[in-house]
Amino acid sequence: MNAQRCLDILRKIKDVAFATVNDKGKPEVRIIDVMIVEQEKLYFCTGRGKDFYRQLLEHPDVAVTGLNKAFQMVRLSGKAEKLTDQKRWIDRIFEENPVMNGVYPGESRYILEPFCIESGELEFFDLGKSPICRESFVFGEEKNIKQKGFRIIDACIGCGKCMRGCPQQCITKGTPFLIHQEHCLHCGLCFENCPVQAIVRRGA
Amino acid sequence: MNAQRCLDILRKIKDVAFATVNDKGKPEVRIIDVMIVEQEKLYFCTGRGKDFYRQLLEHPDVAVTGLNKAFQMVRLSGKAEKLTDQKRWIDRIFEENPVMNGVYPGESRYILEPFCIESGELEFFDLGKSPICRESFVFGEEKNIKQKGFRIIDACIGCGKCMRGCPQQCITKGTPFLIHQEHCLHCGLCFENCPVQAIVRRGA
Repeated sequence: MNAQRCLDILRKIKDVAFATVNDKGKPEVRIIDVMIVEQEKLYFCTGRGKDFYRQLLEHPDVAVTGLNKAFQMVRLSGKAEKLTDQKRWIDRIFEENPVMNGVYPGESRYILEPFCIESGELEFFDLGKSPICRESFVFGEEKNIKQKGFRIIDACIGCGKCMRGCPQQCITKGTPFLIHQEHCLHCGLCFENCPVQAIVRRGA
Repeated sequence: MNAQRCLDILRKIKDVAFATVNDKGKPEVRIIDVMIVEQEKLYFCTGRGKDFYRQLLEHPDVAVTGLNKAFQMVRLSGKAEKLTDQKRWIDRIFEENPVMNGVYPGESRYILEPFCIESGELEFFDLGKSPICRESFVFGEEKNIKQKGFRIIDACIGCGKCMRGCPQQCITKGTPFLIHQEHCLHCGLCFENCPVQAIVRRGA
């Protein structure tokens, strides 16, 4: 897995959820088509009359997610930028997604504005596998992956309580014990079970 | 269509997108299972170790969306409340969704906390029909539907430019001309096309 393949999964799902923050600071989410994915960039469009359009201009931070039939979830966080050269991009989008002509026939397509997400974070989460499997990536200018979940520090006394309780059995013995991050649900059970507070949040 | 049937669609899709606002005011979104829908209430759960859990406690506003195979989209905006009587609700959720035992076997299920959305706004948007069809509902304590899209006011001169340009042909003649809200994309083309600014945002 890598960033491009995560974006390809979103393109293949096509109808994915785009979340934004509205002018009251509240979340909004709707299903939007992923129109083009290429060179680690994701393109979509929306009408100039829509709340979504106004939110994108005011707060370009977007979060995107989709789940495919194999139960692979991709989550993206990034910034959406409005593209210049609107007509060229909209024509290209309609060429690659001819079904759009049914919704916006003829010249009406030009009420749409093209946007691109060209940097951000991606999380791949495979729920179709046992144990579950996850991985994070950055793309474009973004260089930092926000660490999630938990890790075990040297205060570990090796009692094994974390390991025995873990729903995904993703903790192994060692000094200290080790959480295999790629299989972790981030549920927090080990963190709560540890009798000596040797399990801490990552990135905190 | 009504509020209960919108919630039933979300339950049937089951894996839907839940958006929240994080501690930096940015949107986050992930796929979450709708566990139970009954009496116009929607139930879900999440682990106490997850960012999602912390976000729900800090900012209970959530936005939910899903699209089914018939291209019917449901959007929900509401508040998620953590339920008391945790074990009883988690047991009930696992009883109705036995697949959960594969992810959280045995006692590990109790790292999950149950939440309920018992009031909010719902939007039903049928993209499988031509023309598209939309309808809004409230449920629980929520009494106001936020008006979206556009309307035509008395300044209309009857030139028909809005009607001819509409991608969904949802404007009809009259004094003033009329936008059939149930078939409107909210794209904004009529608003831009009107030569006398007789088309205004609803709810503005």
